[in-house]
Amino acid sequence: MTTVAAYAAPAAKAPLERTTIERRAVREFDVLIDIKFAGICHSDIHQVQEGWGEAIFPMVPGHEIAGVVSEVGPGVTKYKVGDRVGVGCMVDSCRECDNCKAGQEQYCTGGGMIGTYNALDKDGEPTLGGYAEKIVVDENYVVRIPDGLSLDVAAPLLCAGITTYSPLKHWNAGPGKKVAVVGMGGLGHMAVKLAHALGAEVTVLSQSLRKQEDGLKLGADHYYATSDPKTFQELAGTFDLIVSTVSAPLDFDAFLSLLRTDGALANVGAPEEPVSVNLFSLLMGRKTLAGSAIGGIQETQEMLDFCAEHGIGAEIELIGASEINEAYERVQSSDVRYRFVIDTATI
Amino acid sequence: MTTVAAYAAPAAKAPLERTTIERRAVREFDVLIDIKFAGICHSDIHQVQEGWGEAIFPMVPGHEIAGVVSEVGPGVTKYKVGDRVGVGCMVDSCRECDNCKAGQEQYCTGGGMIGTYNALDKDGEPTLGGYAEKIVVDENYVVRIPDGLSLDVAAPLLCAGITTYSPLKHWNAGPGKKVAVVGMGGLGHMAVKLAHALGAEVTVLSQSLRKQEDGLKLGADHYYATSDPKTFQELAGTFDLIVSTVSAPLDFDAFLSLLRTDGALANVGAPEEPVSVNLFSLLMGRKTLAGSAIGGIQETQEMLDFCAEHGIGAEIELIGASEINEAYERVQSSDVRYRFVIDTATI
Repeated sequence: MTTVAAYAAPAAKAPLERTTIERRAVREFDVLIDIKFAGICHSDIHQVQEGWGEAIFPMVPGHEIAGVVSEVGPGVTKYKVGDRVGVGCMVDSCRECDNCKAGQEQYCTGGGMIGTYNALDKDGEPTLGGYAEKIVVDENYVVRIPDGLSLDVAAPLLCAGITTYSPLKHWNAGPGKKVAVVGMGGLGHMAVKLAHALGAEVTVLSQSLRKQEDGLKLGADHYYATSDPKTFQELAGTFDLIVSTVSAPLDFDAFLSLLRTDGALANVGAPEEPVSVNLFSLLMGRKTLAGSAIGGIQETQEMLDFCAEHGIGAEIELIGASEINEAYERVQSSDVRYRFVIDTATI
Repeated sequence: MTTVAAYAAPAAKAPLERTTIERRAVREFDVLIDIKFAGICHSDIHQVQEGWGEAIFPMVPGHEIAGVVSEVGPGVTKYKVGDRVGVGCMVDSCRECDNCKAGQEQYCTGGGMIGTYNALDKDGEPTLGGYAEKIVVDENYVVRIPDGLSLDVAAPLLCAGITTYSPLKHWNAGPGKKVAVVGMGGLGHMAVKLAHALGAEVTVLSQSLRKQEDGLKLGADHYYATSDPKTFQELAGTFDLIVSTVSAPLDFDAFLSLLRTDGALANVGAPEEPVSVNLFSLLMGRKTLAGSAIGGIQETQEMLDFCAEHGIGAEIELIGASEINEAYERVQSSDVRYRFVIDTATI
């Protein structure tokens, strides 16, 4: 066991505070990672606030982890001390179901993936996330951060990056395809960069034009305000794929009307409440309303390699650990361009 | 112009009554069809009752039409007098948009397909459907009924058949695939027959086990009652495809839980009211909620050929025209096994 400093929420909705936690001793296939940077994801806040149901406290959030390997177990073959690595939303899964075998561990049907925090590991111990100095993870749930990527801008790729990359790939975003990104936040700005790098024609659909300049700079070809009803008239029947990154409930019928025949509206954000949709919006044009959750380990590696090749990192605002609670407030009021990343040296 | 006998609803929600209507003179590319049989589709009733919005009256419903060619225009090349033919839900479309060119006329974006009834044709004249002695249709919107199929059991294939065949093909129902059919009515019983003939393992999900014997006889491998909560436990994560043929609002989250990863719930029925769905039901397992509307002309021909090859017709209850209003009441109380077909000789 190793005692490490961390930031934790002692109870639901409580502010995060500095504390110490125990990390397990490195086992045969484990990697000990000195965490350098940890991104702040909106879902960290959802979970601290129990917005997705009862949670485990004290909670150390953080599933956008970038760091350096400082110790490896005797059976580890993929990593060595000094390697630059990342950990995303999961640290284990059953490894035996069809989905795990197919590299879709995020959809593990053998009990579900084990989250990086707010979950119980196979020993029944609560998992604790990346707002900490160190973490111990089985090598199979660790990915390599290519040399071309700085660790600070790479950290958010472990959730925001893969969460948007996976549906873009699954629904064939690429040359000749028109892709819309709903929301221009942590996930949305990554979706814009990735869809552009994949060769698609990219349109941002944001509530206002406030971030238009940024959006165009990051790779969007077009930028529309959804608060303007003309947007929906002008863009009717336009898109092959809409990736919605917002967790506020949308007017889904209006957004579905922007799809071409056989188009898909893929949600990576999820409102806590059920949403309403008129099935005629799906019938006319054989449209699909879909969801997508992060991505598998192999696909996460593919995404990191793709980002390194295309020089893509997140747009970040680096903060010290003492600023976490303030950052949470700013995330909730959409006041961040575009991801807070904690410099874990400040813990 | 030809005057023909027909059954029409004079006004919204009014009973249908015998009347006469005018059919246009046969033009260059037109086919005059002596209608032999016309199926009664639930959507006939929806439209007579203006359940889908304001409608055009007097209305002659009927878009499951089987008959024999009795005259052809000078430019007609596909059909000759005496040919056995069918007409489904549309009698024209723009013919110029990408969808029309791709044989997906049902998703015409150049003004939309022109319905067989309750629509305006390109001359601005109301279209009138199949509850009539004759109909005049452009040859491009007519399909051939293969010799192996009796006209009476073929008639419902023009809507109930193609509406279920198209999504089964689109979402790859076939050997090794587990397909569920929700609802065991006019569409549902066709979906069972077609999915079975396509080689899929077929499960019926019906409110009760009342029609279990029929379902198994028609090709279902399994039959479950959705009124029994154990059904949802037992079948969790089972299906590659669920085709929902019901127009009552379902508990979509419960039905989505029956899909495997990457599974699709395709709706061919449509409740008049918006439905509610929790997006987490889609995210976890990258599932899709989709819709599908009838099929294109070429695909309708493919379906008829497939049915002839596999000896598939609808299960029908043949009625005289004077029984139409009674049949409407019975359809609304789900008291039909499984499609009423009007013998138009009785008009």
